[in-house]
Amino acid sequence: MTDTNPIIAGLAELVDAGRLLTDADSLSHYGCDWTKKFEPAPLAVVLPKTLQQVQAIVQYANEHKLALVPSGGRTGLSAAAVAAYGEVVVAFDLMNKISEFNPIDRTVRCQAGVVTAQLQYYAEEQDLYYPVDFASAGSSQLGGNISTNAGGIKVIRYGMTRDWVAGLKVVTGKGDVLDLNNDLVKNATGYDFRNLFIGAEGTLGLIVEATMKLARSPDNLTVLVLGVPEFDAIMNVLTAFQNRIDLTAFEFFSEKAVQLVTAHHNVPRPFESATPYYALLEFEASNDKVLEQAMTLFETCVEQGWVMDGVISQSEAQAAALWRLREGISETLAPFTPYKNDVSVMVSKVPAFLQEIDEIVNARYPDFEIVWFGHIGDGNLHLNILKPDALDKAEFFTRCESVNTAVFETVQKYGGSVSAEHGVGMTKKPYLHYTRAPAEINYMRSVKQIFDPNNIMNPGKIFDL
Amino acid sequence: MTDTNPIIAGLAELVDAGRLLTDADSLSHYGCDWTKKFEPAPLAVVLPKTLQQVQAIVQYANEHKLALVPSGGRTGLSAAAVAAYGEVVVAFDLMNKISEFNPIDRTVRCQAGVVTAQLQYYAEEQDLYYPVDFASAGSSQLGGNISTNAGGIKVIRYGMTRDWVAGLKVVTGKGDVLDLNNDLVKNATGYDFRNLFIGAEGTLGLIVEATMKLARSPDNLTVLVLGVPEFDAIMNVLTAFQNRIDLTAFEFFSEKAVQLVTAHHNVPRPFESATPYYALLEFEASNDKVLEQAMTLFETCVEQGWVMDGVISQSEAQAAALWRLREGISETLAPFTPYKNDVSVMVSKVPAFLQEIDEIVNARYPDFEIVWFGHIGDGNLHLNILKPDALDKAEFFTRCESVNTAVFETVQKYGGSVSAEHGVGMTKKPYLHYTRAPAEINYMRSVKQIFDPNNIMNPGKIFDL
Repeated sequence: MTDTNPIIAGLAELVDAGRLLTDADSLSHYGCDWTKKFEPAPLAVVLPKTLQQVQAIVQYANEHKLALVPSGGRTGLSAAAVAAYGEVVVAFDLMNKISEFNPIDRTVRCQAGVVTAQLQYYAEEQDLYYPVDFASAGSSQLGGNISTNAGGIKVIRYGMTRDWVAGLKVVTGKGDVLDLNNDLVKNATGYDFRNLFIGAEGTLGLIVEATMKLARSPDNLTVLVLGVPEFDAIMNVLTAFQNRIDLTAFEFFSEKAVQLVTAHHNVPRPFESATPYYALLEFEASNDKVLEQAMTLFETCVEQGWVMDGVISQSEAQAAALWRLREGISETLAPFTPYKNDVSVMVSKVPAFLQEIDEIVNARYPDFEIVWFGHIGDGNLHLNILKPDALDKAEFFTRCESVNTAVFETVQKYGGSVSAEHGVGMTKKPYLHYTRAPAEINYMRSVKQIFDPNNIMNPGKIFDL
Repeated sequence: MTDTNPIIAGLAELVDAGRLLTDADSLSHYGCDWTKKFEPAPLAVVLPKTLQQVQAIVQYANEHKLALVPSGGRTGLSAAAVAAYGEVVVAFDLMNKISEFNPIDRTVRCQAGVVTAQLQYYAEEQDLYYPVDFASAGSSQLGGNISTNAGGIKVIRYGMTRDWVAGLKVVTGKGDVLDLNNDLVKNATGYDFRNLFIGAEGTLGLIVEATMKLARSPDNLTVLVLGVPEFDAIMNVLTAFQNRIDLTAFEFFSEKAVQLVTAHHNVPRPFESATPYYALLEFEASNDKVLEQAMTLFETCVEQGWVMDGVISQSEAQAAALWRLREGISETLAPFTPYKNDVSVMVSKVPAFLQEIDEIVNARYPDFEIVWFGHIGDGNLHLNILKPDALDKAEFFTRCESVNTAVFETVQKYGGSVSAEHGVGMTKKPYLHYTRAPAEINYMRSVKQIFDPNNIMNPGKIFDL
């Protein structure tokens, strides 16, 4: 491909023929993520195939002061992968090889463009398990997962993406190729740059390859859905179960969420009785003793008045059906133009925090309806405010912006995070100071300058220099 | 306390009366760790009691360009806590409070001077478990554990100290107090400085407080010791068990180690037959099915010829007795003036790596006897060379220094680490480049300069500026 712009023409020479794109469709396709707040407007899109090509692109960007935006599955929810200001998008779609599976270490090497579900299937074929899972696993890529330290529905047992990265190969903003951690379990040799690059949202360099750990396959995953009369009781249920059973998930959702999901999807209610809240627990019922233990705990919870009703899955199909109550929520809410937030506090602070947010929103915006759900075992709440039918969309979002300030002030009061798992990107950048102190943000700026002195790596994301 | 040196007199005013020490005994007591290679020679020792005092000390050190050496239990094995060059030792012995236990989050706040065993007992009192455990747990302090990312005998199941730190309060070398991560499970708001300070050996700042996570108490821990005819078979045993049972430990030791421990301690052999190698496995036998599974796996291993004999603990006392076979090794070796090394490679590379080291040492130093043991489930091997009786101690260590180069060249060839869990400090500093590339070490230097521009924080440890 040749281009009248000599900068673009030079860039095209660094990748395979036809792997630099400047047509309008490609620019708009590769220039955005799932957020729709910013108009994509990249200068070009490059699709490297090798580490050497990636390194050449970074060196070229330094010489010509081109801003680079790394791009994976573009399923992000914070505009961290949006190219709205004439950047060059570096898309990893062509670097999607899985190799060097190692059954003893239970590790496998993945290029940055490997899709999450691709790794999950690969692990299953080896009779192993890649436990990081979330709604966008079918299209999100590992490079993006690692750059935002993706979480999801199994964090209570398996942790975040961070916990599954044995090693990283990166190209820093300066153009150095670094092999971080050599895929070792134990390596006490100075600063842990692997963990620094994880969650850095592409602002320090490009993740080119990762060695991912795999887990033993879970055994007979069983789901329990419990009807809970008041929010505080959910925490009692969590503690009671957690002290006896290794839970693989502990999710919650409200009656409103159940009503919406059962009305709009072919999903039955979990049981007849309606309760204000529901908890969904999952665990490995690897033998009868665990199931007995779960039933005993259930009975205790009922006796204590923490739980009104419950159902336990008897098969994989039933477990999947119960999961749909939780997993169908986002999709069901979509037509209601929800205003979404992704916040976290310490687990023990969840009840008071949730009540305070409820009170604030109810008092100031009595016409707004709130749907809560989330990964309560991790303190991660998804706050969804539904647009009243009568309200204009633009007006709704303007009013939600002012809700933001109230929500984030409350997050700060409770020592929480303005972004539990979606990242900062551009959408949370104005609110970063509610979670990170000014001194910390300044240290972040300085660290970025070390790895990326020309500020070419995803500039304007997380913080401004 | 007043002192003729005005710098010391000024420093004394920053801590409680009597909490600055300059007597010879204190200087030598607080100025060293378990390594004996460097002569302790600190200028003074301060024992702060509060965050404010720590911050004042750091500010004073910046003004007067005083080097600070953080000091915990001084059980380190890399001279990271040795003050050999007129530094001021900041000892955390008086900051040993445990507070704010939170049963829902299963977290507890610990000052840096809390002793590891103190936290283990505290957890037990709450019917919970602090799973990081190693030989020096009775005197090592959490601040030191965190600064070296201590490992130990349960890493295969529970990970390193890193995995149990929910949040950190630090004073950077610049004097800023930072609260890192707010103790949250999920917090996707930029660079993870908590993980940067973990394992930094006090070179970026002082860890003052940590919020530690606790785990569910393990249930009926059961120990299996297996006699293995050849080293490769140990890896087969590991894979076979790991695919079916969540192991809490997988250790190995050689027949030579068993001979020494059983001869010098009141510990019986695990079983009659002697085999070249032994594997010690531990797991939660929470019900009969797990025990049956373990027995089936044992039989498979015997059928395959991987295991010649075995014994399983029937009680806590028997489990403890079997553990003594492994835990008694270090103490038993001590009188033999062993030359010790702590290296790691990927688990799958252990057999080839171990054989190559054996061949090198046997060929070049035929009079040296090697005792291997280690955390083989993590790829972490402790190489111990015993001093031949006839050889002079100084001569022995000089020859061992040249063994070092051969060992570390092999470590590098296998992509391993020159320090798996002991840290770099001063003893491994000359060998750091075998594990970290020059570009990475330069980035480390730059990162240090951001947090510690005057190079007052444990200077000369890990790398030289």
